[in-house]
Amino acid sequence: MPPELLAAIEAIESLPGIGKRSAMRIAFDLVKRGPLRVANFTAALKTLAEGVTTCSECGAFLSNTAGSACSFCTSPKRTHETLCVVENASDIYAVENTGEHNGLYHVLGGVLSPLDGIGPSELNIPKLFSRAKSLGTKEVIVATNPSVEGNATGHYIADALKPLGVRVTRIATGLALGQLLDYAETQAISQSLRQRVDL
Amino acid sequence: MPPELLAAIEAIESLPGIGKRSAMRIAFDLVKRGPLRVANFTAALKTLAEGVTTCSECGAFLSNTAGSACSFCTSPKRTHETLCVVENASDIYAVENTGEHNGLYHVLGGVLSPLDGIGPSELNIPKLFSRAKSLGTKEVIVATNPSVEGNATGHYIADALKPLGVRVTRIATGLALGQLLDYAETQAISQSLRQRVDL
Repeated sequence: MPPELLAAIEAIESLPGIGKRSAMRIAFDLVKRGPLRVANFTAALKTLAEGVTTCSECGAFLSNTAGSACSFCTSPKRTHETLCVVENASDIYAVENTGEHNGLYHVLGGVLSPLDGIGPSELNIPKLFSRAKSLGTKEVIVATNPSVEGNATGHYIADALKPLGVRVTRIATGLALGQLLDYAETQAISQSLRQRVDL
Repeated sequence: MPPELLAAIEAIESLPGIGKRSAMRIAFDLVKRGPLRVANFTAALKTLAEGVTTCSECGAFLSNTAGSACSFCTSPKRTHETLCVVENASDIYAVENTGEHNGLYHVLGGVLSPLDGIGPSELNIPKLFSRAKSLGTKEVIVATNPSVEGNATGHYIADALKPLGVRVTRIATGLALGQLLDYAETQAISQSLRQRVDL
């Protein structure tokens, strides 16, 4: 194989969720497209990397040309009373797609992980506390991933904010929608039993 | 979502085998990498698109810097007696990975498709006939995809080359390795019955 092809396949394989075979298919497709169309493609990626920053308030993705605060933070239609806490800026779109949350967001940039040396000040947690105060937030919804660290991060936030009169909630975990009971992990079933709701 | 992100997701979604969700994941990952690492990534794609051409003899992928004939055509270790015919340059690697073929290759650039106006001269077929003659080829292995057009292309090549004393063979089709009989298409089963081999 030509070295240019090998190098491109290796680069494409580094993308998340792309294996060797997909990387090869993509590389062959790019050769077929030719220099001009590939230049258009890479220009879009360059613009992405250079043109997207994060909101100085909440950490959401933000266009460089759109000022320092994002459309969530500046929207007059969104309530300041609920604040949804997520690990990564990309998680905002997953929550936003549900249409269930009409408040603001706060991106932590990760989860607490003492073993890896990630404490509250390595994350965007101090800023969360100051925002909750200045915004007059009534409820913080912790929407970190349902991992051990995600749960621990939620408890840390709850311990700090509940004494200040802020309600702190955690998104429900348990059985996934459509998941079969006898294929589910025991832990997931026990969680959905403990967090059962009245019908 | 910032327009730069939307544009990049749309561009990434145009790659083969990449859906909306994968495209989003990749775009988020590129934002996280930052301008410098994305520049390295796009440089590899640019080098690919500008640096890869095809062998003037067989049509295999070839580095711009490597002369006009590929390593298959110039290798003294490969026999000129068998010529494996494939649809696309990328198919060469699929055949090459088997280690079963030690002859040369010939890329057609597609298959015959009269309804789409693709006849022999739209493909690399005239060149195949002249190569088979000048190389003194004894067997042409037709390794086009097992589609109606792929088969028809094989028959066309056989009709032209057999009168010249060239053996023309077709790669076997039938049941895929590991495929369950009761999940297979009837056509695949009948093909594997007709092409049965002695044990």
